[in-house]
Amino acid sequence: MVKGFFGSAVMAEIKYKDRYDLGLIYSEANATVAANFTTNVFKAAPVTDAIEIIKNNKHIKAILVNSGNANACTGLIGLKNVAKCREAVAKNFSIDSSEVLMSSTGVIGAHLPVEKIVNKIPELKERLSPAGLFDVAKAIMTTDTFAKTAQKKFAINGNEVTVFGIAKGAGMIAPKLSSPHATMLAFIMTDANIEQVFLQNIVNILCNKTFNKITVDGDTSTNDSVIVLANGIAANSLITNKENGKEFIEALDAVMKELSYKIVKDGEGATKFINIKIKGMNTPDNAAIIARTIAESPLVKTAIFGEDPNWGRILAAAGRAGVNFNPDKVNVFFDDVMMVKDGMGIIENEEKAKDVMKNKEYSITVAFDEGAASCKFYTCDYSFDYIKINADYRS
Amino acid sequence: MVKGFFGSAVMAEIKYKDRYDLGLIYSEANATVAANFTTNVFKAAPVTDAIEIIKNNKHIKAILVNSGNANACTGLIGLKNVAKCREAVAKNFSIDSSEVLMSSTGVIGAHLPVEKIVNKIPELKERLSPAGLFDVAKAIMTTDTFAKTAQKKFAINGNEVTVFGIAKGAGMIAPKLSSPHATMLAFIMTDANIEQVFLQNIVNILCNKTFNKITVDGDTSTNDSVIVLANGIAANSLITNKENGKEFIEALDAVMKELSYKIVKDGEGATKFINIKIKGMNTPDNAAIIARTIAESPLVKTAIFGEDPNWGRILAAAGRAGVNFNPDKVNVFFDDVMMVKDGMGIIENEEKAKDVMKNKEYSITVAFDEGAASCKFYTCDYSFDYIKINADYRS
Repeated sequence: MVKGFFGSAVMAEIKYKDRYDLGLIYSEANATVAANFTTNVFKAAPVTDAIEIIKNNKHIKAILVNSGNANACTGLIGLKNVAKCREAVAKNFSIDSSEVLMSSTGVIGAHLPVEKIVNKIPELKERLSPAGLFDVAKAIMTTDTFAKTAQKKFAINGNEVTVFGIAKGAGMIAPKLSSPHATMLAFIMTDANIEQVFLQNIVNILCNKTFNKITVDGDTSTNDSVIVLANGIAANSLITNKENGKEFIEALDAVMKELSYKIVKDGEGATKFINIKIKGMNTPDNAAIIARTIAESPLVKTAIFGEDPNWGRILAAAGRAGVNFNPDKVNVFFDDVMMVKDGMGIIENEEKAKDVMKNKEYSITVAFDEGAASCKFYTCDYSFDYIKINADYRS
Repeated sequence: MVKGFFGSAVMAEIKYKDRYDLGLIYSEANATVAANFTTNVFKAAPVTDAIEIIKNNKHIKAILVNSGNANACTGLIGLKNVAKCREAVAKNFSIDSSEVLMSSTGVIGAHLPVEKIVNKIPELKERLSPAGLFDVAKAIMTTDTFAKTAQKKFAINGNEVTVFGIAKGAGMIAPKLSSPHATMLAFIMTDANIEQVFLQNIVNILCNKTFNKITVDGDTSTNDSVIVLANGIAANSLITNKENGKEFIEALDAVMKELSYKIVKDGEGATKFINIKIKGMNTPDNAAIIARTIAESPLVKTAIFGEDPNWGRILAAAGRAGVNFNPDKVNVFFDDVMMVKDGMGIIENEEKAKDVMKNKEYSITVAFDEGAASCKFYTCDYSFDYIKINADYRS
């Protein structure tokens, strides 16, 4: 685990029965905070609240998080309910309510059952333990089928530093995070000693490389949040720049990448994990636009489910992305099987491509002749279960 | 039917067996042509070919159209194959090959079976009849479940004028047409006497109002084409402007709207037809962006299939569209049932909204407080059949 951080979870019956749905992350020391939140115009109450807190306060001690209720589109009542929950945590720990953040995921539009939540805070406090962070990873699950955690350790001048993260998916996943502002939730804890402004910069850059390059359904949530806490307990010499922060950046990148991978791997109804790789584009932004368009194309996603190397759908998606390129200079690979050369299919490779598509994980590479920019984007398929989950269940 | 136009269809076994897959539209008089084609970077060979022909020649006599093969991503061979087919039609009718257009829909990436097509042209010629246009409507079907036609009649100074159109969907439908440039195909024939430049202007404006405001899956095809032919046989006084063209514009608008409706009604796997109405936006473009984002949201489309008035997904989609607005001033209606007022749900109306959603057709209105701009957008739901059709079938 990570030094100085404690977690716990309880069954508060917010929406679900017989499972954890309320969790607490607690840092024994003041933790430097850096965060990214959704760019959706409809920001959930806990997101609006957290943006405001972090604007004024760069150190926090606790994060209260629930599933089953997003507290989104709930107006002023929603904001007041967040404040009540934060105050209850503060009171129990004798800290200031501005040292507490709240985070929510679940149904949009229902009011938070404040009393159920507040009543459980003493139990959350009592249950706190280092390994309890795994329970928090369970408490934030909605349509997720497994809890998502990732951990990296490294040393700075002999001081061991840990970066540990938890996250949830599994639908309304197409984070477009921005600072200081997914219902992707990710909480990353580290005992690193790191300067706040530098941490926020690194979080912005890495979110854009990792969480902002995944999609399950293309629907960006009202609640997406990535919150990174650094409590300094590792007592390493202060990290302030890319040189002395090299190992930290690598570790945080690895944790964010692993959580991103696990979110897409567990996408609603997903049977396949696909790494879309764009190469040879003129700009990174254009590479990302094409990657996202392919990754979110329903015809591509259903062909992946059907294990059909229907490269025409991939090209058609690339061609409608709104980016101009030479269509006669486009190659497509399924792993290392070349399926399209110069914009035309290599029919004799179709059986080999089909074999690749039988795998649970593979890459689709689309290579252009426009420049040196590239992009990797994680996506999954659309299965019968995707429809079932989202037609049957109000998530 | 429409004076001076003839149609026919045959079974050429291009991909399908025991059904029409090759059709011919023939105009006994020179027909003024105006057209819109896909904006996809990968334009199918017949699209590239037709754009070039129409650039130089504003009068044509025949359109050869096939299903089962899109002749897209087929390079120079694809273009040569179009030319061979056009030349064969020209030869049979003793006209110039530049008076013949070709149009294709079906699998991307396979080469056109030119011999099968060319061999059937004498039979197509022999079968030509006014009512044969209905057979053409059948020949262009791919995953369509019914043939799509629409007709309006009106009079100018006592001269009866007819506008008759045929179209096909049913997947890769999110036309973003532009002039002079889906696999939506629509062929509209009129005996009106109308000036070409004015006709092209009207086609541009009306395509943007109708075909460009429909979506099945958000995937814009390489082959989308709307071709309007006017042969002047009605002998009305020449239509040259909005004043003397008022009735014509209304009739063409009505035909395009009806074909648009039928394409979405018959969207792949569709069980519901939804009219998304955006009101109170600041600009028509922003209204259309929000409408399209809601109309293409997988979470909205699965909720529609599930008959769940999950307004939170509608708001979340609106909020991620990339348009800024006041989230506290948004109202949502299912037909006339208000489900959201000022950005918050009206829970007591949920049962009434559920009742609306049991209908096969209804509207979802999202009203903003940003201005007077509005937009209507046709969409359908995502059902189990949508996945089945696209995972099982290479369309």
